[in-house]
Amino acid sequence: MQAIIQNNPEDPSSLSWQEAPLPELKEGEALVELHFAGLNRADTLQAAGHYPPPAGVTEIMGLEGSGVVKKANGTTRPDGTPWKDGDEVGVLLSGGGYAQFAAVPQGQLLPLPEGFDLQHTASIVEVACTVWSNIMLTARVNEGNIVLFHGGAGGIGIFGIQLAKALGAKVAVTAGSAEKLETCKKYGADILINYKEEDFAEVLKEHGGANVILDIIGAKYLDKNLSALAKDGHIVIIGMQGGVKGELNIGKLLNKRGNLSATGLRYRDKEDKARIVKDTADNVWPMLADGRITHHIDRVMPIQDVAKAHKALLDGEVTGKVVLEIAR
Amino acid sequence: MQAIIQNNPEDPSSLSWQEAPLPELKEGEALVELHFAGLNRADTLQAAGHYPPPAGVTEIMGLEGSGVVKKANGTTRPDGTPWKDGDEVGVLLSGGGYAQFAAVPQGQLLPLPEGFDLQHTASIVEVACTVWSNIMLTARVNEGNIVLFHGGAGGIGIFGIQLAKALGAKVAVTAGSAEKLETCKKYGADILINYKEEDFAEVLKEHGGANVILDIIGAKYLDKNLSALAKDGHIVIIGMQGGVKGELNIGKLLNKRGNLSATGLRYRDKEDKARIVKDTADNVWPMLADGRITHHIDRVMPIQDVAKAHKALLDGEVTGKVVLEIAR
Repeated sequence: MQAIIQNNPEDPSSLSWQEAPLPELKEGEALVELHFAGLNRADTLQAAGHYPPPAGVTEIMGLEGSGVVKKANGTTRPDGTPWKDGDEVGVLLSGGGYAQFAAVPQGQLLPLPEGFDLQHTASIVEVACTVWSNIMLTARVNEGNIVLFHGGAGGIGIFGIQLAKALGAKVAVTAGSAEKLETCKKYGADILINYKEEDFAEVLKEHGGANVILDIIGAKYLDKNLSALAKDGHIVIIGMQGGVKGELNIGKLLNKRGNLSATGLRYRDKEDKARIVKDTADNVWPMLADGRITHHIDRVMPIQDVAKAHKALLDGEVTGKVVLEIAR
Repeated sequence: MQAIIQNNPEDPSSLSWQEAPLPELKEGEALVELHFAGLNRADTLQAAGHYPPPAGVTEIMGLEGSGVVKKANGTTRPDGTPWKDGDEVGVLLSGGGYAQFAAVPQGQLLPLPEGFDLQHTASIVEVACTVWSNIMLTARVNEGNIVLFHGGAGGIGIFGIQLAKALGAKVAVTAGSAEKLETCKKYGADILINYKEEDFAEVLKEHGGANVILDIIGAKYLDKNLSALAKDGHIVIIGMQGGVKGELNIGKLLNKRGNLSATGLRYRDKEDKARIVKDTADNVWPMLADGRITHHIDRVMPIQDVAKAHKALLDGEVTGKVVLEIAR
């Protein structure tokens, strides 16, 4: 098969479409012919050498995609019925999405949401599982809560805004431009904060604090997130764009009876991923089917141009998702 | 009535038994004649000026006690049936336990556990609600988990060891002497760590990490607790004897998908307290009744000697609980 291979580990842009061995199929894995791959910030981190695949997983990048089952190999759908060869699927991957074929563990294949095609499905698997698992399975958003998303105009932000609204929450977002905030507003955000002009913690305090904060910044925002938090609130950190080590004021956390979690999907074991995928399919797929959540593909690019796609994401040019079309 | 009054806010030992106004009974509160009060470290903090009562709560110290209902005033038991004047009860308080009478909000009165007298009940209300709410309602101890208690030979430690064992967990403790560790072992602790001689994080790593850590140290142990934590583990901080501000390595937290909460009972609202009291009565009272949890009263002292009692606790002389007998 063909796949994107990084030829120089020191050079994140040395990504070329070339011959690679077909993945070996193990028991409990289906072979899927991929048509599209979703691009994630994590892929750019991996290219830069900061996000190695879990033990036993291919070095090929790509954490989500969509395509057609080639060998179901006894795997079953989230509802327990068997997958059949020829079924169209979305896939959550620990790696290997930038390729013509992927071996996908049982529990990580999903049906297409009703009314969705392969291209659109490839753009929502990772983000849906990420946002659902964090704001519902780790934190527990309740109706009437305030949920704060940093980077509201990114892929996670736009999806998160709509999911939180569908759950009956009020949504606050931070972003770095009026244009990005306008996008957030279009998708339903209630409290729009330009972090270059306002202190988000002060704004949130005026609203009584955020019950749930989904954070991609890490250290730089640690204390500010604590200030922005409501009593019994929950900060969930899923990225560290603003550094790894920060001072934690435990007294402040205690005064709020606050909770702080840091999570990720990629290194979870198969059982855990299967549990999240099923819960996401059960709860989020109906919201996609009836339009409570729409989604925004910024651009579709041929997978051969993946280095350009990574650059566009890192340069902050992207609002929503980039989808890579896989050559046949 | 008589109560313990702190005459000099600058002097934590200026505690005397003297005349005080009878508490005013509000709607939804029962009047309880107290026979015993349990002594908690929080009381010593309040005497030192570091732990003020919540707004609207008496300045009198004392977070738990036992006694007899004098005016039920329409309040009901955790099971929904009415309290009657003359019923013996345990009480969870936001303050006011060092006194002959207390006004106790609906939902914070409990029946005596089967086979328990007033003296023993006064010694377990706060600790039972604290340990249950933290290791089960905040963290979720599962069978086979490893639970680590710092200060294993203190009131919370001894209760926690037994509760965690009753839930099917393996228990690790830290303490500062062989004698204290022997006490922990007697109550069921499996992994005994003298923190003066061993690095608890290294010991826990050998066992695969702690799934739940109940911490009373705070900043000083923040990074070590993270090192000692298992994947998907939960650190619950309920004390800051080792300082308030510490460096948090978010990368380390993320690698473990760790959770960190800081909690307390005292400042929760009445609804939240009632929920915890009911859950504790439903789940922990049967463990006290059938002996799965026994408890250790270190000494019973007349309430007039409360300054001596505080000193004994602060000097580390106490193993288990101190109960104060209230003069009539």
